[in-house]
Amino acid sequence: MISIPTIKRFPSYLRVLRHYRQLGYDWISATKIAEELGLTAVQVRKDMAGTGVEGKPKIGFEIDPLIAAIMHNLNWDTQTDAILVGAGNLGLALARYEGFASYGLRITAIFDSDESKCGKAVGDLLIMPINNISSYIQAHEVRIAVLTVPAAQAQQVAEQLVAYGIRAIWNFAPKDLKLSENVIVQRSDLATSFAVLSAKCRRMIDHGENSPVDLL
Amino acid sequence: MISIPTIKRFPSYLRVLRHYRQLGYDWISATKIAEELGLTAVQVRKDMAGTGVEGKPKIGFEIDPLIAAIMHNLNWDTQTDAILVGAGNLGLALARYEGFASYGLRITAIFDSDESKCGKAVGDLLIMPINNISSYIQAHEVRIAVLTVPAAQAQQVAEQLVAYGIRAIWNFAPKDLKLSENVIVQRSDLATSFAVLSAKCRRMIDHGENSPVDLL
Repeated sequence: MISIPTIKRFPSYLRVLRHYRQLGYDWISATKIAEELGLTAVQVRKDMAGTGVEGKPKIGFEIDPLIAAIMHNLNWDTQTDAILVGAGNLGLALARYEGFASYGLRITAIFDSDESKCGKAVGDLLIMPINNISSYIQAHEVRIAVLTVPAAQAQQVAEQLVAYGIRAIWNFAPKDLKLSENVIVQRSDLATSFAVLSAKCRRMIDHGENSPVDLL
Repeated sequence: MISIPTIKRFPSYLRVLRHYRQLGYDWISATKIAEELGLTAVQVRKDMAGTGVEGKPKIGFEIDPLIAAIMHNLNWDTQTDAILVGAGNLGLALARYEGFASYGLRITAIFDSDESKCGKAVGDLLIMPINNISSYIQAHEVRIAVLTVPAAQAQQVAEQLVAYGIRAIWNFAPKDLKLSENVIVQRSDLATSFAVLSAKCRRMIDHGENSPVDLL
Protein backbone atom coordinates (compact mmCIF):
# COMPACT_ATOMS: atom_id res chain seq x y z
CA MET A 1 0.00 0.00 0.00
CA ILE A 2 1.56 3.29 -1.10
CA SER A 3 1.04 6.14 1.38
CA ILE A 4 -0.55 9.47 0.48
CA PRO A 5 2.66 11.46 1.11
CA THR A 6 4.43 9.15 -1.36
CA ILE A 7 1.63 9.57 -3.91
CA LYS A 8 1.97 13.34 -3.52
CA ARG A 9 5.67 13.15 -4.35
CA PHE A 10 5.10 11.00 -7.46
CA PRO A 11 4.37 13.95 -9.82
CA SER A 12 7.65 15.60 -8.76
CA TYR A 13 9.51 12.33 -9.30
CA LEU A 14 8.01 12.10 -12.78
CA ARG A 15 9.23 15.60 -13.63
CA VAL A 16 12.79 14.79 -12.55
CA LEU A 17 12.82 11.42 -14.31
CA ARG A 18 11.52 12.86 -17.58
CA HIS A 19 14.01 15.71 -17.37
CA TYR A 20 16.95 13.30 -17.03
CA ARG A 21 15.51 11.08 -19.77
CA GLN A 22 15.45 14.11 -22.07
CA LEU A 23 19.07 14.85 -21.18
CA GLY A 24 19.88 11.35 -22.48
CA TYR A 25 20.25 9.41 -19.22
CA ASP A 26 18.94 5.82 -18.94
CA TRP A 27 19.65 5.41 -15.22
CA ILE A 28 19.44 7.72 -12.23
CA SER A 29 20.57 7.33 -8.62
CA ALA A 30 18.35 7.87 -5.59
CA THR A 31 20.91 10.44 -4.43
CA LYS A 32 20.50 12.48 -7.61
CA ILE A 33 16.70 12.39 -7.41
CA ALA A 34 16.91 13.37 -3.74
CA GLU A 35 19.19 16.32 -4.54
CA GLU A 36 16.82 17.58 -7.24
CA LEU A 37 13.84 17.56 -4.89
CA GLY A 38 15.40 18.44 -1.56
CA LEU A 39 14.61 15.00 -0.10
CA THR A 40 16.85 12.42 1.54
CA ALA A 41 18.04 9.45 -0.53
CA VAL A 42 16.50 7.18 2.12
CA GLN A 43 13.10 8.77 1.48
CA VAL A 44 13.48 8.37 -2.28
CA ARG A 45 14.41 4.67 -1.96
CA LYS A 46 11.45 4.12 0.36
CA ASP A 47 9.06 5.84 -2.07
CA MET A 48 10.46 3.88 -5.02
CA ALA A 49 10.11 0.56 -3.20
CA GLY A 50 6.34 1.00 -3.40
CA THR A 51 6.42 1.08 -7.20
CA GLY A 52 7.87 -2.42 -7.44
CA VAL A 53 10.89 -1.20 -9.45
CA GLU A 54 14.15 -2.25 -7.83
CA GLY A 55 17.29 -0.16 -7.95
CA LYS A 56 20.76 -1.58 -8.57
CA PRO A 57 23.63 -0.85 -6.19
CA LYS A 58 25.89 1.98 -7.45
CA ILE A 59 23.78 2.53 -10.59
CA GLY A 60 20.35 3.39 -9.24
CA PHE A 61 17.08 3.07 -11.09
CA GLU A 62 16.41 2.50 -14.77
CA ILE A 63 14.38 5.56 -15.73
CA ASP A 64 11.85 4.21 -18.25
CA PRO A 65 10.46 1.34 -16.13
CA LEU A 66 10.32 3.68 -13.14
CA ILE A 67 8.30 6.27 -15.09
CA ALA A 68 5.94 3.51 -16.28
CA ALA A 69 5.48 2.14 -12.73
CA ILE A 70 4.75 5.56 -11.25
CA MET A 71 2.32 6.36 -14.07
CA HIS A 72 0.53 3.07 -13.42
CA ASN A 73 0.26 3.69 -9.67
CA LEU A 74 -1.18 7.14 -10.38
CA ASN A 75 -3.56 5.70 -12.98
CA TRP A 76 -2.10 8.23 -15.40
CA ASP A 77 -1.29 5.56 -18.01
CA THR A 78 -4.94 5.20 -19.01
CA GLN A 79 -7.27 7.95 -20.13
CA THR A 80 -9.79 8.93 -17.48
CA ASP A 81 -12.89 10.83 -18.52
CA ALA A 82 -14.47 13.35 -16.20
CA ILE A 83 -17.24 15.91 -16.30
CA LEU A 84 -16.82 19.44 -14.99
CA VAL A 85 -19.67 21.06 -13.09
CA GLY A 86 -19.73 24.85 -12.69
CA ALA A 87 -18.64 27.05 -15.59
CA GLY A 88 -17.39 30.03 -13.57
CA ASN A 89 -13.92 31.54 -13.99
CA LEU A 90 -12.12 28.71 -12.26
CA GLY A 91 -14.21 26.04 -14.00
CA LEU A 92 -13.54 27.50 -17.42
CA ALA A 93 -9.82 27.80 -16.71
CA LEU A 94 -9.69 24.16 -15.65
CA ALA A 95 -11.71 23.09 -18.69
CA ARG A 96 -9.15 24.83 -20.91
CA TYR A 97 -6.11 23.68 -18.94
CA GLU A 98 -3.90 21.63 -21.24
CA GLY A 99 -1.83 20.10 -18.46
CA PHE A 100 -4.58 17.59 -17.61
CA ALA A 101 -3.75 15.54 -20.70
CA SER A 102 -0.41 14.59 -19.16
CA TYR A 103 -2.26 13.09 -16.19
CA GLY A 104 -4.53 11.10 -18.48
CA LEU A 105 -7.48 13.29 -17.50
CA ARG A 106 -9.94 14.37 -20.17
CA ILE A 107 -12.86 16.69 -19.49
CA THR A 108 -15.66 15.39 -21.73
CA ALA A 109 -18.52 17.69 -20.73
CA ILE A 110 -19.18 20.95 -18.88
CA PHE A 111 -22.41 21.69 -17.01
CA ASP A 112 -23.81 24.85 -15.49
CA SER A 113 -27.14 25.80 -13.92
CA ASP A 114 -27.09 29.24 -15.57
CA GLU A 115 -29.06 28.85 -18.79
CA SER A 116 -27.47 31.94 -20.34
CA LYS A 117 -24.11 30.13 -20.32
CA CYS A 118 -25.43 26.97 -21.96
CA GLY A 119 -24.49 26.42 -25.58
CA LYS A 120 -21.33 28.50 -25.26
CA ALA A 121 -18.15 26.84 -26.51
CA VAL A 122 -15.18 26.11 -24.27
CA GLY A 123 -12.48 24.69 -26.49
CA ASP A 124 -14.11 21.69 -28.22
CA LEU A 125 -16.96 21.46 -25.72
CA LEU A 126 -20.29 23.21 -25.26
CA ILE A 127 -21.58 24.18 -21.84
CA MET A 128 -24.66 22.06 -21.15
CA PRO A 129 -27.62 22.64 -18.82
CA ILE A 130 -27.27 20.88 -15.48
CA ASN A 131 -30.64 19.21 -16.04
CA ASN A 132 -28.93 16.99 -18.63
CA ILE A 133 -26.32 15.74 -16.22
CA SER A 134 -28.12 12.59 -15.06
CA SER A 135 -28.67 11.25 -18.56
CA TYR A 136 -25.12 12.21 -19.57
CA ILE A 137 -23.53 10.35 -16.65
CA GLN A 138 -25.63 7.27 -17.37
CA ALA A 139 -25.03 7.30 -21.12
CA HIS A 140 -21.26 7.85 -20.87
CA GLU A 141 -20.61 5.90 -17.67
CA VAL A 142 -18.38 8.67 -16.38
CA ARG A 143 -17.36 8.21 -12.75
CA ILE A 144 -15.32 11.35 -11.97
CA ALA A 145 -16.56 14.93 -11.60
CA VAL A 146 -14.57 18.14 -11.22
CA LEU A 147 -16.68 20.36 -8.97
CA THR A 148 -16.25 24.11 -9.48
CA VAL A 149 -19.63 25.43 -8.31
CA PRO A 150 -19.93 28.13 -5.60
CA ALA A 151 -19.63 26.97 -1.99
CA ALA A 152 -23.35 27.46 -1.33
CA GLN A 153 -24.32 24.91 -4.00
CA ALA A 154 -21.46 22.44 -3.56
CA GLN A 155 -23.06 20.01 -1.10
CA GLN A 156 -26.34 19.75 -2.96
CA VAL A 157 -24.71 19.34 -6.38
CA ALA A 158 -22.27 16.76 -4.99
CA GLU A 159 -25.14 14.70 -3.55
CA GLN A 160 -26.90 14.77 -6.92
CA LEU A 161 -23.73 13.69 -8.71
CA VAL A 162 -23.31 10.74 -6.37
CA ALA A 163 -26.97 9.78 -6.82
CA TYR A 164 -26.42 9.78 -10.59
CA GLY A 165 -23.40 7.46 -10.38
CA ILE A 166 -20.33 9.67 -9.81
CA ARG A 167 -17.79 7.86 -7.59
CA ALA A 168 -14.97 10.42 -7.31
CA ILE A 169 -15.14 14.21 -6.90
CA TRP A 170 -12.27 16.63 -7.35
CA ASN A 171 -13.65 19.45 -5.24
CA PHE A 172 -12.53 23.01 -5.97
CA ALA A 173 -15.46 24.58 -4.10
CA PRO A 174 -14.45 26.12 -0.76
CA LYS A 175 -16.74 23.74 1.12
CA ASP A 176 -16.18 20.54 3.07
CA LEU A 177 -18.42 17.94 1.48
CA LYS A 178 -20.21 15.33 3.57
CA LEU A 179 -20.71 12.26 1.41
CA SER A 180 -20.82 8.49 1.72
CA GLU A 181 -17.45 6.93 2.52
CA ASN A 182 -17.69 5.03 -0.76
CA VAL A 183 -17.14 8.28 -2.63
CA ILE A 184 -13.59 9.51 -3.23
CA VAL A 185 -13.32 13.22 -2.55
CA GLN A 186 -10.12 15.16 -3.15
CA ARG A 187 -10.15 18.82 -2.20
CA SER A 188 -8.05 21.32 -4.07
CA ASP A 189 -8.96 24.35 -2.11
CA LEU A 190 -7.21 27.62 -2.84
CA ALA A 191 -8.06 28.87 0.64
CA THR A 192 -6.13 26.06 2.33
CA SER A 193 -3.09 26.54 0.14
CA PHE A 194 -3.10 30.30 0.64
CA ALA A 195 -3.63 29.85 4.39
CA VAL A 196 -0.20 28.25 4.72
CA LEU A 197 1.51 30.93 2.62
CA SER A 198 -0.30 33.69 4.44
CA ALA A 199 0.41 32.36 7.93
CA LYS A 200 4.11 32.14 7.04
CA CYS A 201 3.99 35.75 5.81
CA ARG A 202 2.34 36.78 9.09
CA ARG A 203 5.31 35.35 10.97
CA MET A 204 7.78 36.97 8.62
CA ILE A 205 6.08 40.31 9.37
CA ASP A 206 5.97 39.68 13.11
CA HIS A 207 9.64 38.68 13.18
CA GLY A 208 10.87 41.48 10.92
CA GLU A 209 11.09 41.34 7.18
CA ASN A 210 14.74 40.39 6.99
CA SER A 211 14.75 37.49 9.42
CA PRO A 212 15.04 34.02 7.95
CA VAL A 213 11.76 32.20 7.49
CA ASP A 214 12.40 28.96 9.37
CA LEU A 215 9.26 29.70 11.28
CA LEU A 216 6.84 26.90 10.56
CA MET B 1 3.99 27.84 17.22
CA ILE B 2 0.96 26.67 15.23
CA SER B 3 1.63 23.61 13.09
CA ILE B 4 1.01 23.46 9.34
CA PRO B 5 -1.75 20.82 9.67
CA THR B 6 -3.55 23.17 12.09
CA ILE B 7 -3.09 26.12 9.71
CA LYS B 8 -4.57 23.98 6.93
CA ARG B 9 -7.68 23.33 9.03
CA PHE B 10 -8.18 27.02 9.87
CA PRO B 11 -10.11 27.87 6.67
CA SER B 12 -12.55 25.02 7.37
CA TYR B 13 -12.96 26.21 10.96
CA LEU B 14 -13.72 29.70 9.68
CA ARG B 15 -16.45 28.35 7.40
CA VAL B 16 -18.13 26.46 10.24
CA LEU B 17 -17.84 29.38 12.68
CA ARG B 18 -19.29 31.86 10.19
CA HIS B 19 -22.08 29.46 9.33
CA TYR B 20 -23.11 29.13 12.99
CA ARG B 21 -22.76 32.90 13.50
CA GLN B 22 -25.19 33.41 10.59
CA LEU B 23 -27.60 30.97 12.20
CA GLY B 24 -27.61 33.26 15.24
CA TYR B 25 -25.29 31.37 17.60
CA ASP B 26 -22.79 33.25 19.81
CA TRP B 27 -21.05 30.15 21.20
CA ILE B 28 -20.10 26.79 19.74
CA SER B 29 -18.75 23.61 21.35
CA ALA B 30 -15.61 21.79 20.20
CA THR B 31 -17.83 18.71 19.77
CA LYS B 32 -20.10 20.54 17.32
CA ILE B 33 -17.16 21.87 15.29
CA ALA B 34 -15.63 18.39 15.28
CA GLU B 35 -18.89 16.85 14.02
CA GLU B 36 -19.16 19.36 11.20
CA LEU B 37 -15.65 18.63 9.95
CA GLY B 38 -15.26 14.94 10.73
CA LEU B 39 -12.53 15.61 13.31
CA THR B 40 -12.24 14.56 16.96
CA ALA B 41 -13.15 17.10 19.65
CA VAL B 42 -9.65 16.59 21.09
CA GLN B 43 -8.12 17.71 17.78
CA VAL B 44 -10.38 20.77 17.64
CA ARG B 45 -9.46 21.81 21.20
CA LYS B 46 -5.77 21.33 20.40
CA ASP B 47 -6.05 23.44 17.25
CA MET B 48 -7.98 26.16 19.07
CA ALA B 49 -5.42 26.31 21.88
CA GLY B 50 -2.94 27.72 19.37
CA THR B 51 -5.16 30.71 18.67
CA GLY B 52 -5.03 31.91 22.30
CA VAL B 53 -8.83 31.82 22.63
CA GLU B 54 -9.92 29.72 25.60
CA GLY B 55 -13.09 27.68 25.65
CA LYS B 56 -15.42 27.48 28.63
CA PRO B 57 -16.45 24.13 30.09
CA LYS B 58 -19.91 23.00 28.85
CA ILE B 59 -20.35 26.11 26.67
CA GLY B 60 -17.41 25.96 24.28
CA PHE B 61 -15.93 28.85 22.36
CA GLU B 62 -17.29 32.34 21.80
CA ILE B 63 -17.52 32.53 18.03
CA ASP B 64 -16.58 36.15 17.24
CA PRO B 65 -13.26 36.26 19.15
CA LEU B 66 -12.37 32.85 17.72
CA ILE B 67 -12.99 34.06 14.15
CA ALA B 68 -10.87 37.15 14.84
CA ALA B 69 -8.01 35.08 16.31
CA ILE B 70 -7.96 32.63 13.40
CA MET B 71 -8.08 35.50 10.88
CA HIS B 72 -5.13 37.11 12.65
CA ASN B 73 -3.06 33.92 12.65
CA LEU B 74 -3.73 33.51 8.95
CA ASN B 75 -2.89 37.17 8.30
CA TRP B 76 -6.30 37.42 6.65
CA ASP B 77 -7.31 40.41 8.79
CA THR B 78 -5.09 42.80 6.87
CA GLN B 79 -5.06 43.37 3.13
CA THR B 80 -2.10 41.77 1.40
CA ASP B 81 -1.14 42.97 -2.06
CA ALA B 82 0.35 40.56 -4.58
CA ILE B 83 1.34 40.58 -8.21
CA LEU B 84 0.40 37.80 -10.60
CA VAL B 85 2.93 36.64 -13.18
CA GLY B 86 1.74 34.66 -16.20
CA ALA B 87 -1.54 35.60 -17.87
CA GLY B 88 -2.47 32.17 -19.23
CA ASN B 89 -5.83 30.50 -18.57
CA LEU B 90 -5.08 29.67 -14.97
CA GLY B 91 -3.50 33.06 -14.29
CA LEU B 92 -6.49 34.92 -15.70
CA ALA B 93 -8.92 32.78 -13.72
CA LEU B 94 -7.02 33.49 -10.52
CA ALA B 95 -6.83 37.21 -11.34
CA ARG B 96 -10.62 37.24 -11.70
CA TYR B 97 -11.29 34.99 -8.72
CA GLU B 98 -13.40 36.92 -6.23
CA GLY B 99 -12.77 34.54 -3.34
CA PHE B 100 -9.32 36.02 -2.70
CA ALA B 101 -10.87 39.11 -1.11
CA SER B 102 -12.09 36.99 1.79
CA TYR B 103 -8.48 35.97 2.48
CA GLY B 104 -7.33 39.59 2.43
CA LEU B 105 -5.47 38.95 -0.82
CA ARG B 106 -5.60 41.59 -3.55
CA ILE B 107 -3.96 41.13 -6.94
CA THR B 108 -2.66 44.59 -7.86
CA ALA B 109 -0.91 43.88 -11.15
CA ILE B 110 -0.65 41.19 -13.82
CA PHE B 111 2.47 40.59 -15.91
CA ASP B 112 3.15 38.49 -18.99
CA SER B 113 6.09 38.09 -21.34
CA ASP B 114 3.79 37.88 -24.38
CA GLU B 115 3.58 41.43 -25.75
CA SER B 116 0.36 40.68 -27.63
CA LYS B 117 -1.39 40.17 -24.27
CA CYS B 118 -0.13 43.41 -22.75
CA GLY B 119 -2.63 46.24 -22.43
CA LYS B 120 -5.58 43.83 -22.27
CA ALA B 121 -7.96 44.36 -19.37
CA VAL B 122 -8.62 41.71 -16.72
CA GLY B 123 -11.26 43.11 -14.41
CA ASP B 124 -9.89 46.45 -13.23
CA LEU B 125 -6.30 45.64 -14.20
CA LEU B 126 -4.30 45.78 -17.40
CA ILE B 127 -1.80 43.07 -18.31
CA MET B 128 1.67 44.65 -18.21
CA PRO B 129 4.91 43.63 -19.93
CA ILE B 130 7.22 41.58 -17.74
CA ASN B 131 10.01 44.08 -18.36
CA ASN B 132 8.16 46.51 -16.08
CA ILE B 133 8.10 44.08 -13.17
CA SER B 134 11.27 45.24 -11.44
CA SER B 135 10.24 48.89 -11.28
CA TYR B 136 6.70 47.91 -10.22
CA ILE B 137 7.88 45.76 -7.31
CA GLN B 138 10.22 48.51 -6.13
CA ALA B 139 7.66 51.30 -6.50
CA HIS B 140 4.83 49.41 -4.76
CA GLU B 141 6.91 47.43 -2.26
CA VAL B 142 4.92 44.30 -3.03
CA ARG B 143 6.40 41.17 -1.45
CA ILE B 144 4.12 38.37 -2.70
CA ALA B 145 3.85 36.95 -6.21
CA VAL B 146 1.36 34.46 -7.62
CA LEU B 147 3.30 32.45 -10.20
CA THR B 148 1.27 31.04 -13.10
CA VAL B 149 3.89 30.82 -15.85
CA PRO B 150 4.57 27.54 -17.72
CA ALA B 151 6.83 25.01 -15.97
CA ALA B 152 9.73 25.69 -18.34
CA GLN B 153 9.93 29.35 -17.30
CA ALA B 154 9.04 29.01 -13.63
CA GLN B 155 12.54 28.70 -12.12
CA GLN B 156 14.00 31.59 -14.09
CA VAL B 157 11.04 33.90 -13.44
CA ALA B 158 11.03 33.00 -9.73
CA GLU B 159 14.73 33.85 -9.43
CA GLN B 160 14.10 37.22 -11.07
CA LEU B 161 11.19 37.94 -8.74
CA VAL B 162 13.36 37.19 -5.70
CA ALA B 163 16.16 39.38 -7.07
CA TYR B 164 13.64 42.22 -7.42
CA GLY B 165 12.44 41.92 -3.82
CA ILE B 166 9.65 39.29 -3.76
CA ARG B 167 9.74 37.32 -0.49
CA ALA B 168 6.84 34.88 -0.92
CA ILE B 169 5.73 32.94 -4.00
CA TRP B 170 2.43 31.09 -4.41
CA ASN B 171 3.53 28.68 -7.10
CA PHE B 172 0.93 27.25 -9.48
CA ALA B 173 3.52 26.18 -12.06
CA PRO B 174 4.05 22.39 -12.15
CA LYS B 175 7.71 22.81 -11.21
CA ASP B 176 9.63 22.43 -7.94
CA LEU B 177 11.38 25.76 -7.39
CA LYS B 178 14.88 25.91 -5.92
CA LEU B 179 15.21 29.22 -4.10
CA SER B 180 16.92 30.67 -1.06
CA GLU B 181 15.53 29.41 2.24
CA ASN B 182 14.60 33.01 3.07
CA VAL B 183 11.88 32.88 0.41
CA ILE B 184 8.47 31.45 1.32
CA VAL B 185 7.21 29.13 -1.42
CA GLN B 186 3.78 27.54 -1.30
CA ARG B 187 2.92 25.15 -4.08
CA SER B 188 -0.63 24.76 -5.27
CA ASP B 189 -0.02 22.17 -7.87
CA LEU B 190 -2.99 20.63 -9.66
CA ALA B 191 -0.89 17.58 -10.54
CA THR B 192 -0.27 16.72 -6.88
CA SER B 193 -3.91 17.11 -5.96
CA PHE B 194 -5.07 15.04 -8.90
CA ALA B 195 -2.40 12.41 -8.17
CA VAL B 196 -4.11 11.52 -4.90
CA LEU B 197 -7.57 11.37 -6.47
CA SER B 198 -6.29 9.36 -9.39
CA ALA B 199 -4.33 6.87 -7.30
CA LYS B 200 -7.46 6.25 -5.21
CA CYS B 201 -9.47 5.70 -8.41
CA ARG B 202 -6.81 3.22 -9.58
CA ARG B 203 -7.38 1.18 -6.43
CA MET B 204 -11.14 1.42 -6.76
CA ILE B 205 -10.77 -0.02 -10.29
CA ASP B 206 -8.35 -2.74 -9.15
CA HIS B 207 -10.62 -3.74 -6.27
CA GLY B 208 -13.89 -3.63 -8.18
CA GLU B 209 -16.09 -0.63 -8.58
CA ASN B 210 -18.49 -1.44 -5.80
CA SER B 211 -16.02 -2.12 -3.03
CA PRO B 212 -15.69 0.52 -0.33
CA VAL B 213 -12.83 2.94 -0.82
CA ASP B 214 -10.98 2.65 2.47
CA LEU B 215 -7.90 1.96 0.47
CA LEU B 216 -5.44 4.72 1.24
